[in-house]
Amino acid sequence: MKEDHIFHFKGDFKLEAGETLSGFQLKYTTLGSLNASKDNVVWVCHALTGSSDFTSWWHGVFTEGSPIDPRDYFIICANLLGGCYGSTGPLSINSNTGKPFYHSFPTITGRDIVNAFDLLREELNISSIHTLIGGSLGGQHAMEWAIQKPGVFRNLILMACNAAHSPWGIAFNEAQRLAIEADPTWKENDLRAGLGGMKAARAMGMISYRTHQTYGKTQAEKTNENLDDYRASSYQRYQAEKLANRFNAFTYWTLSKVMDSHNVGRKRESIKKALHGIKAKTLVVGIDSDILFPLAEQEFLAKEIPGAKLEVISSLYGHDGFLVEFEQFKKIIRKFLKKENKEKEIATV
Amino acid sequence: MKEDHIFHFKGDFKLEAGETLSGFQLKYTTLGSLNASKDNVVWVCHALTGSSDFTSWWHGVFTEGSPIDPRDYFIICANLLGGCYGSTGPLSINSNTGKPFYHSFPTITGRDIVNAFDLLREELNISSIHTLIGGSLGGQHAMEWAIQKPGVFRNLILMACNAAHSPWGIAFNEAQRLAIEADPTWKENDLRAGLGGMKAARAMGMISYRTHQTYGKTQAEKTNENLDDYRASSYQRYQAEKLANRFNAFTYWTLSKVMDSHNVGRKRESIKKALHGIKAKTLVVGIDSDILFPLAEQEFLAKEIPGAKLEVISSLYGHDGFLVEFEQFKKIIRKFLKKENKEKEIATV
Repeated sequence: MKEDHIFHFKGDFKLEAGETLSGFQLKYTTLGSLNASKDNVVWVCHALTGSSDFTSWWHGVFTEGSPIDPRDYFIICANLLGGCYGSTGPLSINSNTGKPFYHSFPTITGRDIVNAFDLLREELNISSIHTLIGGSLGGQHAMEWAIQKPGVFRNLILMACNAAHSPWGIAFNEAQRLAIEADPTWKENDLRAGLGGMKAARAMGMISYRTHQTYGKTQAEKTNENLDDYRASSYQRYQAEKLANRFNAFTYWTLSKVMDSHNVGRKRESIKKALHGIKAKTLVVGIDSDILFPLAEQEFLAKEIPGAKLEVISSLYGHDGFLVEFEQFKKIIRKFLKKENKEKEIATV
Repeated sequence: MKEDHIFHFKGDFKLEAGETLSGFQLKYTTLGSLNASKDNVVWVCHALTGSSDFTSWWHGVFTEGSPIDPRDYFIICANLLGGCYGSTGPLSINSNTGKPFYHSFPTITGRDIVNAFDLLREELNISSIHTLIGGSLGGQHAMEWAIQKPGVFRNLILMACNAAHSPWGIAFNEAQRLAIEADPTWKENDLRAGLGGMKAARAMGMISYRTHQTYGKTQAEKTNENLDDYRASSYQRYQAEKLANRFNAFTYWTLSKVMDSHNVGRKRESIKKALHGIKAKTLVVGIDSDILFPLAEQEFLAKEIPGAKLEVISSLYGHDGFLVEFEQFKKIIRKFLKKENKEKEIATV
């Protein structure tokens, strides 16, 4: 039922920052079947270190009986351009040199990522998407796509994201890039370049994804007696190692820059004007404890996207709540889509 | 009026974690004069990257006309043991080898730092301290000292600190140490070892000292058009460079560990029991936007320290508010000390 595919785009692909890629590929995963009227497509945009296999990181959301049931919907997620899970990114072979891009991978933006998704959509002959959904970096992309192609999306679910990446978010990313730069292997053209620095970066990232309360609850010491080797320290090192075993510093760097340059207002008069152009029925979801994308950012989105509704998830887990609070998330989606389906029925009658 | 001094301790100094220092020195700065009854001493404990020159980082607090007026008080601050501004620390010469300690500097804790302060106090023949004051790491030390020597301090002002360093705080510090470790020069025995890593660490630290709102207000972009080189990025790099020009990774590492091991409950039954032993009249000051030492931590202190009073500073600057909001701070101190002086007058009458 779940299938992996590769989409090859052979033409020149002009990037927003000026360079051109001589073709690219996207790995994408599908679950469920396209119906005859081709109106049951749900497109999922993944976050910073995610892959196209959305069932591995949003495991509870797309199961049978869930509000987006694979028996009813055809669900697609593509690893984003710049990624390292099967799509063209810094580790891919540059066809012009026959060697991996590494440091020569061009600057890409969320708009390039969305353009690549859209080429895949066209290739699949999907003219209308029932629901576009994404959280964090994935939410930024979903928003950008819904602005670029307002006629394509009927519903849009934006979770824990913002209209333009904040100076605070950029500061977090810059600190992480400084850690990668502090690792001199980063200068090398090698798969493992900068991995030590990326570990520190990931440990910093973990902080932005969680809260004082999360660490207090999950990493509290059992006694007052220790002088070193605290549980919170081990946790940071564990998370750092875990990412180093499945990711690379080139992709991490590239996508952190993609996040920084997310700004729907660029070349569009203003941020508000861009949001006003969204035609999809929109649900914005925020997490009350999110310090990286605080609730005020989702309140702004809900205020500016025409007709948008805001729902707030209560979580101990901060930003990571979007990968944790499946039950609340499913309840919110069920309510949102039920209403949409009801309105559709009325319209048909 | 302001004078710098060096205190030399010649004996063996046993450290909490087990090792022994063959003597040490503390650089300390004084302002004002000790009165005849020796009851006008204000002792200031500095924070992570501070020096004994408290007038340089709390410039507004100890001026003429302020609530702690150097015409009335004899104000002392010593660079802490482990520091790099004149006191014995990792860059000092190890008398046993004739070379700088660097990586061989022993593990120290806040209790060692406070013991060293107390030896200086004895050397100066000060049996009673009017007010002990500190913020952040300095607040942790002030608290520890007031617990160790309850009879010495009449007033205690604890700002933006906690009773035991939180798992969240430790996670921040661990991410910063990972950045220093990612810099291979850190292995060297050299003054500049790990400086690249320390830059990333400092950038990370800046985030913990500020907030989403602070960066949003001070580092916002002027346009929506930029694709790179954001103001928030420049700010992070600027702060990183600035510290690299005045500090070293050994001291940074050592003091981050000192912060992690701050726990007033160690070897004292419990944290609450330790706080209950404080005899000084205590003012606890929190900052409403502090994410590193959130207000709940100061509420806990105020609840558990007998008779303590809590005051909250409203600031855009998060934890850094303790180095910024001088006017609010002075107002709070004035109110606190005025009440104390009034009570003293009544008691005398």
